[in-house]
Amino acid sequence: MPPIKTNRNSTKKEVIIDKAAQLFMEKGFSATSMRDLAEKVGVEAASLYNHIQSKAEILQIICFRVANFLLEHLEKVENNKQGAIEKIKTILRFHLWHMINNYEEVQVADREWRHLPEPYLSNFKVQRKNYRQRLAAIIEKGVRCKEVKPIDPSTAVLIMLHAVSGVESWHRSSQKISADQLEKDIVLILVEGLKN
Amino acid sequence: MPPIKTNRNSTKKEVIIDKAAQLFMEKGFSATSMRDLAEKVGVEAASLYNHIQSKAEILQIICFRVANFLLEHLEKVENNKQGAIEKIKTILRFHLWHMINNYEEVQVADREWRHLPEPYLSNFKVQRKNYRQRLAAIIEKGVRCKEVKPIDPSTAVLIMLHAVSGVESWHRSSQKISADQLEKDIVLILVEGLKN
Repeated sequence: MPPIKTNRNSTKKEVIIDKAAQLFMEKGFSATSMRDLAEKVGVEAASLYNHIQSKAEILQIICFRVANFLLEHLEKVENNKQGAIEKIKTILRFHLWHMINNYEEVQVADREWRHLPEPYLSNFKVQRKNYRQRLAAIIEKGVRCKEVKPIDPSTAVLIMLHAVSGVESWHRSSQKISADQLEKDIVLILVEGLKN
Repeated sequence: MPPIKTNRNSTKKEVIIDKAAQLFMEKGFSATSMRDLAEKVGVEAASLYNHIQSKAEILQIICFRVANFLLEHLEKVENNKQGAIEKIKTILRFHLWHMINNYEEVQVADREWRHLPEPYLSNFKVQRKNYRQRLAAIIEKGVRCKEVKPIDPSTAVLIMLHAVSGVESWHRSSQKISADQLEKDIVLILVEGLKN
C-alpha cells in the first residue's frame, strides 16, 4: 500500500501543529507549555497566538484530524464490495500506514485525548465509540455468514487496535523490519493466524 | 485455566504495596506522594517507613515481582515437551490470567518501570529484553520447523504482547464478556486466525 499522508500544507499553523505533536508526544500535553512550543518553533511565545488560540486548540485539531481520517476510510470500506475478511485486512493496513506516516499525531490523539476541553471531549468519545462499533459490525457480519471464526466482535476490535498500537515499539526499535514486512506480518498474525 | 494469584500474604507491607499499586495506576508514580499513600492505607505518613524505605522501593518490588513471575513461567514452558504453537498458547493464557488477577501490579510494572532508580532500571530493562527474546526464540523455532507461518519472530512478540495489554480496555468495560471467553478469543485471533 502506498504511503498515506494526511492532507497538509506547510503553512505556519501546520508547522506549529507538527512541532506541538512532537512535544506532546515527548513530554505529554499537560507538561508542555506555550513557551516550550515557541522555543521549538523558533518564535516568540506571543507570536504563536497569531496562528492558534491555545494549546487545547492544537490538541483538538490533532485529535479530530486523526479521528476523521480513520472514520472517512472506514466509511469507504463499509460501502465497498469486499467480504468481511478483506475489509478487515484493508482497515488494518490503512491503520498501520496512517500510524507509520503520521506517527506523532496518531500517538498524541491516542494518549492525550482525555485532555480535550468540552464539548470536544464528549464529541471525541462518541466518535471513538462509533468507530469501534462500526468495526465490530463488520466482524459480526463476517461471523454471521461464517467467513470469520466465532469470536466476540468487540474483543476482536480491542485486540486488533491494541496490536496495531504495537507499531509504537516497532517505531522505536533500532533493528526494524521494513514497513511492508510489518504490514504483512500484522495481517498474517491477526487474520490468517500463526498456525501453519 | 484456574486463576493465578501471586504468592502473597496480608502482611502490612503487602497491604501498603497493594494500595500503592492502586495509586500508581490512578495517578501515576510521579504524582503519588507518600502522604497520599499513608492516607490510602489509613496510617500516619511516618509509620509507613517502619515497613518500606521509599516510593521507589515499592515500585521496585512491583516491577520485579511481575517480571520474575513471567520469567519463571516462561522457563517452565521452554522446558516442557509442547510444540511451538502449544507453547505460545500456554504463554498467552498465562499472561492473560496474570494480567486479570494482578491487574494493577501488571499495569504499573508496564507503565511506570522507567521511574526505577539505578541499578534496578538497567536490570529491569535487561529482564524485559530477555523475556521478549526468549519468546521470539520459541516462535523462531516454530517457524523453522514449519509449525508456525513465516513471520518475523520479534514482530510476532510485539503484536502478541500489545494485544494482551488490550485486556486493560476489557477490564474497564462495563459490558464484559467472561474472562474464559476472553482467553478463548485471544488465542483464537492470535494463533488460529480470524479467517474461517
